[in-house]
Amino acid sequence: MNWSLIIKVQGYLLLILGIMMIFPLMISFHYGGGDLGAIALSIAITLITGLAFIFIFKSDKKFKAKEGFASVSLGWILSALFGALPYFFHGSFGPYINCVFEAMSGFTTTGSTILSDIESIPRGLLFWRSLTHWLGGMGIVLFTIAILPMFGIAPGQLYNAEVPGPTKDRLSPKIKDTAKILWLIYIGLTIIETIFLMFGGMDLYTAVNHSFATVATGGFSTLNTSISGFNSVYIDIVITVFMFLAGVNFALHFYLIKGRFRDFFKDSELKFYTAVITITTILISLNIYFSSGIEKYTTNYGRALLDSAFQVVSITTTTGFMTADFNLWPSFSALLLVTLMFFGGCAGSTGGGMKQIRILILFKHLSNEIKKLAHPRASFSLRVGEEHVENHVVRNVLGFSILFVFIFTGSTLFLAGMGYDIITSFTAAISCLGNIGPGLARVGAIENFGFFDSYSKGVLIFCMLLGRLEIYSVLILIYSVIFRKR
Amino acid sequence: MNWSLIIKVQGYLLLILGIMMIFPLMISFHYGGGDLGAIALSIAITLITGLAFIFIFKSDKKFKAKEGFASVSLGWILSALFGALPYFFHGSFGPYINCVFEAMSGFTTTGSTILSDIESIPRGLLFWRSLTHWLGGMGIVLFTIAILPMFGIAPGQLYNAEVPGPTKDRLSPKIKDTAKILWLIYIGLTIIETIFLMFGGMDLYTAVNHSFATVATGGFSTLNTSISGFNSVYIDIVITVFMFLAGVNFALHFYLIKGRFRDFFKDSELKFYTAVITITTILISLNIYFSSGIEKYTTNYGRALLDSAFQVVSITTTTGFMTADFNLWPSFSALLLVTLMFFGGCAGSTGGGMKQIRILILFKHLSNEIKKLAHPRASFSLRVGEEHVENHVVRNVLGFSILFVFIFTGSTLFLAGMGYDIITSFTAAISCLGNIGPGLARVGAIENFGFFDSYSKGVLIFCMLLGRLEIYSVLILIYSVIFRKR
Repeated sequence: MNWSLIIKVQGYLLLILGIMMIFPLMISFHYGGGDLGAIALSIAITLITGLAFIFIFKSDKKFKAKEGFASVSLGWILSALFGALPYFFHGSFGPYINCVFEAMSGFTTTGSTILSDIESIPRGLLFWRSLTHWLGGMGIVLFTIAILPMFGIAPGQLYNAEVPGPTKDRLSPKIKDTAKILWLIYIGLTIIETIFLMFGGMDLYTAVNHSFATVATGGFSTLNTSISGFNSVYIDIVITVFMFLAGVNFALHFYLIKGRFRDFFKDSELKFYTAVITITTILISLNIYFSSGIEKYTTNYGRALLDSAFQVVSITTTTGFMTADFNLWPSFSALLLVTLMFFGGCAGSTGGGMKQIRILILFKHLSNEIKKLAHPRASFSLRVGEEHVENHVVRNVLGFSILFVFIFTGSTLFLAGMGYDIITSFTAAISCLGNIGPGLARVGAIENFGFFDSYSKGVLIFCMLLGRLEIYSVLILIYSVIFRKR
Repeated sequence: MNWSLIIKVQGYLLLILGIMMIFPLMISFHYGGGDLGAIALSIAITLITGLAFIFIFKSDKKFKAKEGFASVSLGWILSALFGALPYFFHGSFGPYINCVFEAMSGFTTTGSTILSDIESIPRGLLFWRSLTHWLGGMGIVLFTIAILPMFGIAPGQLYNAEVPGPTKDRLSPKIKDTAKILWLIYIGLTIIETIFLMFGGMDLYTAVNHSFATVATGGFSTLNTSISGFNSVYIDIVITVFMFLAGVNFALHFYLIKGRFRDFFKDSELKFYTAVITITTILISLNIYFSSGIEKYTTNYGRALLDSAFQVVSITTTTGFMTADFNLWPSFSALLLVTLMFFGGCAGSTGGGMKQIRILILFKHLSNEIKKLAHPRASFSLRVGEEHVENHVVRNVLGFSILFVFIFTGSTLFLAGMGYDIITSFTAAISCLGNIGPGLARVGAIENFGFFDSYSKGVLIFCMLLGRLEIYSVLILIYSVIFRKR
């Protein structure tokens, strides 16, 4: 492992991070609020550290896949550690662990917050919070669609040529072109959503913040009551649509732009994702409409349908915005949302979770196994759409799923061991591991994560990182640190 | 599929079932209690149906694996349907669905009950309840160790030559001899435990009932308060030891009897099972000892350790007896017990769940996958003990695990959809699918399953069946019924 190279890369990353902090600095300068000094100091520290990394560590060797993974994991960790500085210096976020939690939640596009009164935070810091989402979302799309194919490998090897999905030659033969196109799509979505939101009456600042949080499937809002605070059917619908789009593989957006509609609509993962969202939306809307005790819905099925669609899309894409406190919904709806937390967005989107394509492959594998029972000597190939999925990809998907469940179980047990109740522990763990945001009970839609002790926050921060980088990248880093000799 | 043959076999099964009912009839005759008529009528119906099946359906064809699986599944279903008759005719168990629930819970060695006042039921019926456990436990041991190898196949193909575990040539080349030895071990364990329990002050009737429920890892007690009702450290220890033994692969007991101690102690699954139980016992004992609010334990660590050991062994082996209401334990202990519900007993034991060997293979598979990250070109063979596990076995274990989790999730959602709370739905589903008995919340250790609506009871009955036959056997039956032409 070439550590010099890895650390040098981190230097460049910190430079970018420091430069990005200039935006919240400008916001702070414009709106005031007392966070100017905290942000300025953070910029200085981040830039100096970045420059120091670049000048101290020399390396002319080339990147290998292992170093690529380790760099990405370390990049996310350092982003959270340095991105937490503005919060820390301002003091309003409490101890440093809280600030790292908030920053990691931002960069991993999770959206869980330790803040109880978001509206009391100055606008510069809130903008930084939204910007971390936006940068993290872009980072993960670049990582999965543009960078991974360079190494001919991917976390979970899910993006190999065998699986329908993005590979470099499908988008553009040159990595820089791919990255550029992805940037343009990402920025385009952000701008279009911002305009739509402003039509709904939002000011520019609020619209940009929510647009950042939407296209990154993050979920940070500048309001204490999230999207329900706008009390606007129009805004609910706009955000639902853009959350849905952000949960789609960005390679498909590329097809759309190129006019390759057939490639867009024949995508099996997109079909599955749409079907999952449609079916669960209908089930939950009926459940909350016909359940007694939720007064708001009893007279208006349209409202039940909209709230259901918003919440289903918000949870499935792992955004975590809310228009209704689903913690109060009947247990069927709540549990169905928790189940969707495991599903997550499409591969190559900004969404987290296990990814729709993996769930689809799991279903197809099971279907094959059952067919084999009746025809033990027959051989069934696993197909997704028109393409054959190789055995080693299936094995990897199975392995990833089990690993995901094991890490989730371990984290849940840890939280329970720290004394939190079962539902809080269970949903906080999956919410962070799946990069979602809210959970149920004490981490319900209108609650926050501030009450957790520092150890639990540490575990949840680690879960966010593992979930965002689909576990394997982080494991490679840990493995390399432990067995440094190799 | 040769349905004539399958139904003919069911006829013989019903004959055995009818003959077995003579034992509770004798108990009823001895103790009185008003259940004599109900049992006698059930015997008549069962025997007549059995004879009708045998004489109406003719078949001289030989069994194939598929027919074997379908017969076993159908056998368990008919056992539950006819085994429910004594309860139904007596009337004290309520509607027929309750009676089938109780009978299926018995034959699948689950131990969940719909009774709220067990002690009000006549002794004949309670004995039949315990006997269904005992017969079901023996049935599953015969099925997995003696019958499956005949077809060179097993549910989950777990018992193939590749995996350490029982195959016909390890025990005895002749199926009848194997069956005979297993019977003897099973009866031996039952008699020895009965004697031990009687030394603890139990009368013969109570001792036999609890011995049946222990060696079958069932969990039905004749007391409302389960084992805590005896208030005896001696009895707690005896039952803990025998539950542990019943959760061990019965092929290993065979080795013990033959003096092949090395084969016994080198078994990887046994080591893993022992480690899991030891570690969780210690963790839970510390958790309940140091947690405030559970007065009973604060002054006596020994008691905490014993209750912890009892409960861990009871849940891991999927027996379901209780000495303490773990529903009131801290969330860590409760959740750890729920996690153990997924583990279950060893393969080839009377225990349910996913089986220890599968969990061990999952861990080893993950360990290999992680090693592969650091050494992508290296090839790692999965070994359990000294033996290599073939890829197709690993794939099957992975597939089974996912299927198990999917069925569990579906059942949980169904129960939540019927209006039950999250923890009740979650733990009732895993408790029945894992053949355990109690869960948490409304199905906690001192509660019962009587309050569920009929549809939910139906789903839970199906879960017990699926769990007991490791899903695939039941799927083959369903598959064959749906696609009858093949």
